[in-house]
Amino acid sequence: MRQPQLEPAAGTPQQVRIYEVGVRDGLQNEATVVPVEVKAEFVRRLLAAGLKTIEVTSFVSPKWVPQLADAEELIRLLGADGLGPDRPVLCPNDKGLERALALGVTSIAIFGSATETFASKNLNRTIAESLTMFEPVVNRAKDAGAWVRAYVSMCFGDPWEGDVPVGQVVHVARAMMDLGCDELSLGDTIGVATPGHVERLIDALVEGGIDLDKIAVHFHDTYGQALSNTLAAVRHGIGIVDASAGGLGGCPYAKSATGNLATEDVVWALQGMGISTGVDLTALVETSRWMAEYLGRPAPSRVVRALSAA
Amino acid sequence: MRQPQLEPAAGTPQQVRIYEVGVRDGLQNEATVVPVEVKAEFVRRLLAAGLKTIEVTSFVSPKWVPQLADAEELIRLLGADGLGPDRPVLCPNDKGLERALALGVTSIAIFGSATETFASKNLNRTIAESLTMFEPVVNRAKDAGAWVRAYVSMCFGDPWEGDVPVGQVVHVARAMMDLGCDELSLGDTIGVATPGHVERLIDALVEGGIDLDKIAVHFHDTYGQALSNTLAAVRHGIGIVDASAGGLGGCPYAKSATGNLATEDVVWALQGMGISTGVDLTALVETSRWMAEYLGRPAPSRVVRALSAA
Repeated sequence: MRQPQLEPAAGTPQQVRIYEVGVRDGLQNEATVVPVEVKAEFVRRLLAAGLKTIEVTSFVSPKWVPQLADAEELIRLLGADGLGPDRPVLCPNDKGLERALALGVTSIAIFGSATETFASKNLNRTIAESLTMFEPVVNRAKDAGAWVRAYVSMCFGDPWEGDVPVGQVVHVARAMMDLGCDELSLGDTIGVATPGHVERLIDALVEGGIDLDKIAVHFHDTYGQALSNTLAAVRHGIGIVDASAGGLGGCPYAKSATGNLATEDVVWALQGMGISTGVDLTALVETSRWMAEYLGRPAPSRVVRALSAA
Repeated sequence: MRQPQLEPAAGTPQQVRIYEVGVRDGLQNEATVVPVEVKAEFVRRLLAAGLKTIEVTSFVSPKWVPQLADAEELIRLLGADGLGPDRPVLCPNDKGLERALALGVTSIAIFGSATETFASKNLNRTIAESLTMFEPVVNRAKDAGAWVRAYVSMCFGDPWEGDVPVGQVVHVARAMMDLGCDELSLGDTIGVATPGHVERLIDALVEGGIDLDKIAVHFHDTYGQALSNTLAAVRHGIGIVDASAGGLGGCPYAKSATGNLATEDVVWALQGMGISTGVDLTALVETSRWMAEYLGRPAPSRVVRALSAA
């Protein structure tokens, strides 16, 4: 299978860690409900393809997201493959956290918002109230020895509020990191960012006291900008990139889809630039083709489609 | 209509010239044959949206490309809108050039290959033979006072030959510029380039004596890399970018499509970074929606789709 030509680019890190979100964020946003055995097989194939960090599932109420009603079962099915510091699970609140800890989970993620409108719509709280909700979750997780990631959504724009001031994002991000979180993921939930904006927010966060090596980026391709913004971040010193195998969760055939950055597309770029990700591109493409076949439609990832057509 | 948040990025030019290829390269690669009146209206709408440089048509044999059999008629229909230094037409050989000059065309483009295999398949000649074919075309055009662009395809990879050595591209590019061409467009015909590769080729061309301000880039999105590579080029000093309104010619629903960079997607990025293109994004999106409606399917451009869904 074709591989990108190796042409190192100046000013880039030697390696980037991919935080794989296809199993949780990806499948959660697909119309097809995937059986738990297939999800477990998906995790195992991703591990075999060299993905080291995989968000496995989310302990939300099954009433909200039926696709995630199998969270406990998936963790049990995976055994050792589903636990440990590199298998975070999303825990939106204390109830979710207790379910996760009871299974031996030692790595979690919480999900905040940079804007009041999205905090209200997604969490039914103000930003301040959401921080009050997160505090005991993070404390309990840290007491249990767990690693904690903080997602902040709407960092680069909001569908209701429009532009989002950089200072507002820094305020929320600092507040979440001050709770004791270990990693911060900056979400461009509606995909509107451009590279100068990415660089400015990263600079502002570092000036605000957040370590550069704790910052991850999570771009969506709604406006076709996901890979450009990701590479702008990487060239600005970011070493952790969220991506979804095959582009799962962002089917280009669905009008409402917002489009996750496809892991294959960013791995193609990074590998070409001589930046190591540990990912075996051929094995990953095969995995995404297998999942696309299960879902009954082509993978959104352009690399997967190009290499499948070849 | 939503616009990107303005956040200037360091190390970028103040403005970029979009070389619009949707009318020629885009429609040529669409399954639907578009009537000449609609093509003329398309050109006029693009001009009204602020696109300054528009490749209008190609004087190839109608036997090869039936979509372009209306080249003469289109130029006549457009009148003053279709002529001048910013309305180049593609002239693959001396016959095409004579047809163009007879109509008052004063700006042309020729189309070469960086690889022997593609030269053979596309031009039925070796690279050396193609240069021999171009020489009288460029001489005749320059004698007539015309401006000449040189396309070089397969600059970053070839479907048959695999990797393409940078030195080979420089050799062909220099030979074409030495004929007297005014501008060089580097084509990533199969969409495999990554940013380090882009920067290395640009550096090599400049070292080879080609002025940076005469170099344009033409990326395809086959592997999802087109915008990233374009922005890498712009941040490396390139001021001329080829793009296709709406992403025409690269329908993502067609398995064989290679995917032109959508003008809207690159304008979104550049506008966000504070780089002027002169394009009115709202008017351009309306134009691409109008054309997509004519073609009976959504525009491939993600910006067009996102703003149409909003």
